[in-house]
Amino acid sequence: MNQNLTDLSLDLLKSLKKTSDFQKIEELIEKIHLSKSQIQKAIKELKSFGYQIDQTKEKGIRLTFIPDRLFPFEITGNLKTKFLGKKIYYYGKIGSTNELGYRLAQTKVEEGTLIITEEQTKGKGRMGRSWYSPPYLGIWMSLILRPDISPSKAPALSLCAGLALALSIKKLTGLDAKIKWPNDCLINKKKVGGILLELQAELDRINFVILGLGVNINQTQKDFPKKIKKTATSLKIELKKNVKRVLLLKLFLENFEKIYSSFKEDGLTFLKKRIKDLSVVLGENIELSFGRKKIKGKALDIDDDGSLLVESKGKKIKVFAGEVTLLR
Amino acid sequence: MNQNLTDLSLDLLKSLKKTSDFQKIEELIEKIHLSKSQIQKAIKELKSFGYQIDQTKEKGIRLTFIPDRLFPFEITGNLKTKFLGKKIYYYGKIGSTNELGYRLAQTKVEEGTLIITEEQTKGKGRMGRSWYSPPYLGIWMSLILRPDISPSKAPALSLCAGLALALSIKKLTGLDAKIKWPNDCLINKKKVGGILLELQAELDRINFVILGLGVNINQTQKDFPKKIKKTATSLKIELKKNVKRVLLLKLFLENFEKIYSSFKEDGLTFLKKRIKDLSVVLGENIELSFGRKKIKGKALDIDDDGSLLVESKGKKIKVFAGEVTLLR
Repeated sequence: MNQNLTDLSLDLLKSLKKTSDFQKIEELIEKIHLSKSQIQKAIKELKSFGYQIDQTKEKGIRLTFIPDRLFPFEITGNLKTKFLGKKIYYYGKIGSTNELGYRLAQTKVEEGTLIITEEQTKGKGRMGRSWYSPPYLGIWMSLILRPDISPSKAPALSLCAGLALALSIKKLTGLDAKIKWPNDCLINKKKVGGILLELQAELDRINFVILGLGVNINQTQKDFPKKIKKTATSLKIELKKNVKRVLLLKLFLENFEKIYSSFKEDGLTFLKKRIKDLSVVLGENIELSFGRKKIKGKALDIDDDGSLLVESKGKKIKVFAGEVTLLR
Repeated sequence: MNQNLTDLSLDLLKSLKKTSDFQKIEELIEKIHLSKSQIQKAIKELKSFGYQIDQTKEKGIRLTFIPDRLFPFEITGNLKTKFLGKKIYYYGKIGSTNELGYRLAQTKVEEGTLIITEEQTKGKGRMGRSWYSPPYLGIWMSLILRPDISPSKAPALSLCAGLALALSIKKLTGLDAKIKWPNDCLINKKKVGGILLELQAELDRINFVILGLGVNINQTQKDFPKKIKKTATSLKIELKKNVKRVLLLKLFLENFEKIYSSFKEDGLTFLKKRIKDLSVVLGENIELSFGRKKIKGKALDIDDDGSLLVESKGKKIKVFAGEVTLLR
């Protein structure tokens, strides 16, 4: 679909968003320097995107409904970032944002480019698993990053994204979002978001990273497939009301840009404490799976490179990745 | 170019290679079940590939010259591997075998697929540098590998390839080839070969690795560009005679398959001693560069994961990659 409004419509939308009151056409003409017919054209275009606009001869016009869509112009309006989300690829439906991101990254697309979709038909989870991504109910997105770090620091980057997501959820909803090392975000011990890092690298240099993010936002219990009903949750389930996806997305981009910049400069130095404070695994007895191998132990600490320090059978082990199960 | 001989020509070539004597056409007809006209057709085809064949009415035919080309059928004939080099993409000229390999690997091409070319126009070295790859004078190749290991083990895989190359050079030429951690092969302190690993990975799983290998074989001093004249060498320069590239290539594939299989089963357990024995950096004072950062220290050991243990300013450091300069 066409994903962009004309500049005329954007100007009108901005003006309409400033107030819930009616505005007289004549005043708008003066304010935004459009002709009457241009305003009528813009109203028509905005309506075709799902915006609802009241119009009376006496009072003028006002915005009565903003559709719950992640249109690029809704994301970039007032977005306080320097490079994240400045360029956006938006889709109604797509196989996988990570897959497209990977292909785009191979073509010199700039750092911070955002790929976002209302629905994924082949959403990817870790280890070749799928990620359930129904239309309009969550954030399904990928960012193209080009950090000058070694591949061994990827786990730390995954934690940075988890931190940004947890902080954004907390700020927007007040919910107690936590980080589950290395790549999940939990509320009340259930998965509300997940991060999938895919990278192209040489031995000691990352060429690019695709940071995929899936966040369950407005699903109800019955929206989840049976397989994940018990382990997954959404912001709506926890909060008992709908959440505006675009607000969380913008918060995430803003928080993550700060955190990512700090990480590129100083590694986890200024981030580790906050990551540890939000971590659900530290101090817990856990089982770690690596493919078919499993070990049990106690999660002691998160190291400077993002790895997990585990005590198992009296030995301290440094773990770079794997699946964590909390033992109760 | 067409890179394959017809089966008829292959059969004839095999028979001709068995002896340097003339063979009578009538005998060949009986041996390989071809008609006289089929044999004439095969001779013509072989000649079009650069093979020279003597033919007299009385004595019959014999092979007098095999062109120095890396034709797939020259590589696979008698190749003692199970999966390396079983499928070959061969080119007269190509930009970069790693780049093509990367694209092929994204399309489910099987493990062990070999991409090889007589010349690279954009040969890639590490860190975005170029690798000089003139026509017919070296081996410029890439292997597609799909090991089930974590990205942090990539340095070990690079060492495995270095070991296989050094052993193959030693066996074929008797030259004292050494390994320079993490990815070069040296003779008399000059670079004769280099390895470029590129990988696509998740946090804890490699999807695929492109193992690029460049080996200088039949260059003379004057064939090298000024920039690398002092630091590069070739087998011909060291040995003072030409080396058959296809022989080294086959040895490498055979050696590397064994080493790679051992690595996948048991990591460096059975390989580390040989790697250490051939290593030029151990016990030496070195400077390590990571981008703009540099540290000086003494190379102490190679760890189980392929990382280098360095003592610097009284501290032991574990180094996963970087550029090593030997200090004298």
